[in-house]
Amino acid sequence: MLKDLNKLEKPLDEELEKRLEEARVGLANRQLKIKEKHLPVIVLLDGWGAAGKGSIIGKVIRNIDPRFFKVATMKQPSEEELRKPFLYRYFVRIPEAGQFVFFDGGWMDEVTRGCLQGELDEKDYQQRIQSIKRFERQLTDNGYLVMKFFFHIEEKEQKKRLDGLLESKNTKWRVSDSDLWQNKHYNKCLDIYEQYLCDTNQSTAPWYIIDAQNKKWAELQLLEFLIEGIDTALMNSSLAVPLLQNVFPLSPIPKLAEIPLDKTITEEEYHQDLKKYQKKLKELQNILYRKKIPVIIAYEGWDAAGKGGNIKRIAGALDPRGYEVQPIASPEPHEKARHYLWRFWNRLPKTGHITIFDRTWYGRVMVERLEGFCSQNDWQRAYNEINEFEKELSDWGAIIIKFWVQIDKDTQLARFTERQNTPEKQWKITDEDWRNREKWDLYEDAVNEMLQKTNTTFAPWHVLESNDKKYARIKALKIIIEAIEQRL
Amino acid sequence: MLKDLNKLEKPLDEELEKRLEEARVGLANRQLKIKEKHLPVIVLLDGWGAAGKGSIIGKVIRNIDPRFFKVATMKQPSEEELRKPFLYRYFVRIPEAGQFVFFDGGWMDEVTRGCLQGELDEKDYQQRIQSIKRFERQLTDNGYLVMKFFFHIEEKEQKKRLDGLLESKNTKWRVSDSDLWQNKHYNKCLDIYEQYLCDTNQSTAPWYIIDAQNKKWAELQLLEFLIEGIDTALMNSSLAVPLLQNVFPLSPIPKLAEIPLDKTITEEEYHQDLKKYQKKLKELQNILYRKKIPVIIAYEGWDAAGKGGNIKRIAGALDPRGYEVQPIASPEPHEKARHYLWRFWNRLPKTGHITIFDRTWYGRVMVERLEGFCSQNDWQRAYNEINEFEKELSDWGAIIIKFWVQIDKDTQLARFTERQNTPEKQWKITDEDWRNREKWDLYEDAVNEMLQKTNTTFAPWHVLESNDKKYARIKALKIIIEAIEQRL
Repeated sequence: MLKDLNKLEKPLDEELEKRLEEARVGLANRQLKIKEKHLPVIVLLDGWGAAGKGSIIGKVIRNIDPRFFKVATMKQPSEEELRKPFLYRYFVRIPEAGQFVFFDGGWMDEVTRGCLQGELDEKDYQQRIQSIKRFERQLTDNGYLVMKFFFHIEEKEQKKRLDGLLESKNTKWRVSDSDLWQNKHYNKCLDIYEQYLCDTNQSTAPWYIIDAQNKKWAELQLLEFLIEGIDTALMNSSLAVPLLQNVFPLSPIPKLAEIPLDKTITEEEYHQDLKKYQKKLKELQNILYRKKIPVIIAYEGWDAAGKGGNIKRIAGALDPRGYEVQPIASPEPHEKARHYLWRFWNRLPKTGHITIFDRTWYGRVMVERLEGFCSQNDWQRAYNEINEFEKELSDWGAIIIKFWVQIDKDTQLARFTERQNTPEKQWKITDEDWRNREKWDLYEDAVNEMLQKTNTTFAPWHVLESNDKKYARIKALKIIIEAIEQRL
Repeated sequence: MLKDLNKLEKPLDEELEKRLEEARVGLANRQLKIKEKHLPVIVLLDGWGAAGKGSIIGKVIRNIDPRFFKVATMKQPSEEELRKPFLYRYFVRIPEAGQFVFFDGGWMDEVTRGCLQGELDEKDYQQRIQSIKRFERQLTDNGYLVMKFFFHIEEKEQKKRLDGLLESKNTKWRVSDSDLWQNKHYNKCLDIYEQYLCDTNQSTAPWYIIDAQNKKWAELQLLEFLIEGIDTALMNSSLAVPLLQNVFPLSPIPKLAEIPLDKTITEEEYHQDLKKYQKKLKELQNILYRKKIPVIIAYEGWDAAGKGGNIKRIAGALDPRGYEVQPIASPEPHEKARHYLWRFWNRLPKTGHITIFDRTWYGRVMVERLEGFCSQNDWQRAYNEINEFEKELSDWGAIIIKFWVQIDKDTQLARFTERQNTPEKQWKITDEDWRNREKWDLYEDAVNEMLQKTNTTFAPWHVLESNDKKYARIKALKIIIEAIEQRL
């Protein structure tokens, strides 16, 4: 298998030098095109210890303007990273459009190491494989070029290199215990690596095996594969990507128009309930913290539906050391230059913490859809991408609660007018709010489609009837409490 | 894992009936759209014996106009099928655009059975998996909807059903030995099935697990998944598909302009060599037949380059019971309505036989490209699809020899003029030949690109310098002999 994925025949030395020279210039030229066409490129280098990944990365990047690449050397996850979803530390390091990131070791290393050390059982392993396949496919679907290289050397060659490094004081430090362990258990490792390579050899992000017995030859292979991959990706840069069949468990959910909005609560009941449920939530937060369960609460809803006040009542119950509110505005340029979920990956809670999103990743299928901030293909693909994202969070162990704060059109008008007429509330109302209001029907269609397509069993939507804001606040508290209690 | 791929929650009986009624009408409506949009749909039904696949297919097809679907019940491969590549019997059964094919059992069944019976070792299994992934992906890339269902029942339920069938004379025949074996080794089978489902669960052709404990519920799941899949595919019908990174081992090959065409052979040498090499080839054909090695010889080249005469000299050496010449003209309507490689899958030799293609699947990247008979995306994708096709043939064990018969422009003119002026040769020259000649430079570019991108190590190109046709004939014979001898 490892050999099967190899594709170039080693040329004679002279020919090699010639091609190497061409390929170096070739990569430099490609970098200009990448910049011009805003292509983001992820290069993943995995392989045997002492196969020479590091030194070859060093050579390859000499052909690239330093402003346009980063090298991410992935060691063992930090304490902080271990408290995030498995893919977090990779997702937050993806490049901006027009740039390279070279991962020196990465998710392959983490997963195969987990298998070898017996930390991942078969079920965990399969889950990781699914995560990785979705991760890589989402990147390529969103216009990333993902190139994966495995640097291969034989057992004897590895031993020779490690012995050589150990001989001198100056190079001894470069040999890790894990390199020695790997060489001692070469065949066991080989089995695991081959299995992983098979399992993740996707047509959109295939593996290339680099024959790394000879350094110049290894460099040439890497460069030529890179160039070919870049040329292919540049041809694809304007193409839409076919939508995928849905594979997530969806629950039926009513349309907005079918939801009665006459629910209310008395002032007295409200104050009683608020106190009672806030106390309860505070207690639960402590247990969540102790059990290291992360909670993600997502708020979407009409302008002036009462999201802010609702969030305030949730946050008011919580210990500030254990939660964060993330208000989501339109993306910054450096955020726009990456996968649209990147800024949300960056805002995830640690285990045991709670993050409340005031507006969310669902902007993609609402405002970005309706205002043309992304292509039709982009927002149509997003339902599945969002389900995959939430599946990732759910597999990690997060409790995910999604609220749609619902009011009717008249209520919105009344609140807008009140804001307009109340000096201390005028900051809350903008021209954009009025413009959005004009598109109410379009938004309602988009929201209905969103609810239908993303109401998964692992990350369900809850509609908060918020003509009476107080009713909505109590309902939100109850739903959060119930979701947490169900898990505990 | 099996459960993970399941996504619907069983509704209460009344709700189930209502949804079933809707889904039946829904499928009937979708069929009209499929016809209108020329969407070809492949439905693969696999699963446990006695899970009720057959009877549910029976119910589902009642909603479809009989002119627009076929049911392919895949038993064990026939003698004839066993002498073709693994995927042959599935590929030849793919539907026309606008139609359904329901596969009752299929490639999953064949592969998992092979594993359970110990006929496929790990390496063979991995090769099958790669073949299947490429097969399914090529279909979806070419606009097919591929929906894969696994009908799942528990061990006890299976036993109950089998016992029930065995009790009566009228149903006893429906229980096969393999059903009984399966139930007896339920857990062993489950492991193999789960592995297979994981390994082939591609985003473009995912698996759906049908909970088949209850028949109506199973039918509803199948219908609802089908409808959702069809709706997604209809949205994709106009989209181009991103090109893939090349993963095949390519050898460098010179451009046509770099090939000297002054090679000749004397009349005497020609007759001596022809006799000698034809004799040799005839001997080799016998060995190939005995060793059951298939040979595929593909001819492409300029009009009037001498393909016909060249083929005649090869064929002249062969026992007619063991070879076929396949002249390839433009595709018939029923061929055009399918994957463009379909008509070539239908024309493959049996093991031990030789097929000579007079023009080939490379028409896609030459005439179809230049005359606009397919989209740019179609021919750009075709290089990889053709490499995959030839890899399939090579993995099967075929010797693949591809000839480009090369002449220069002046030689073509001389031959055209001679044909024009010689009454018994006039049938050989058409207006189209003259029109193609006007596009010589465009064709030359296309041919160069084709040679570069499809000169794989397992199916290499050979350029036959055919300004002297006799030289080219002897060279072809020598190359064929050498390729066969290398294998033996």
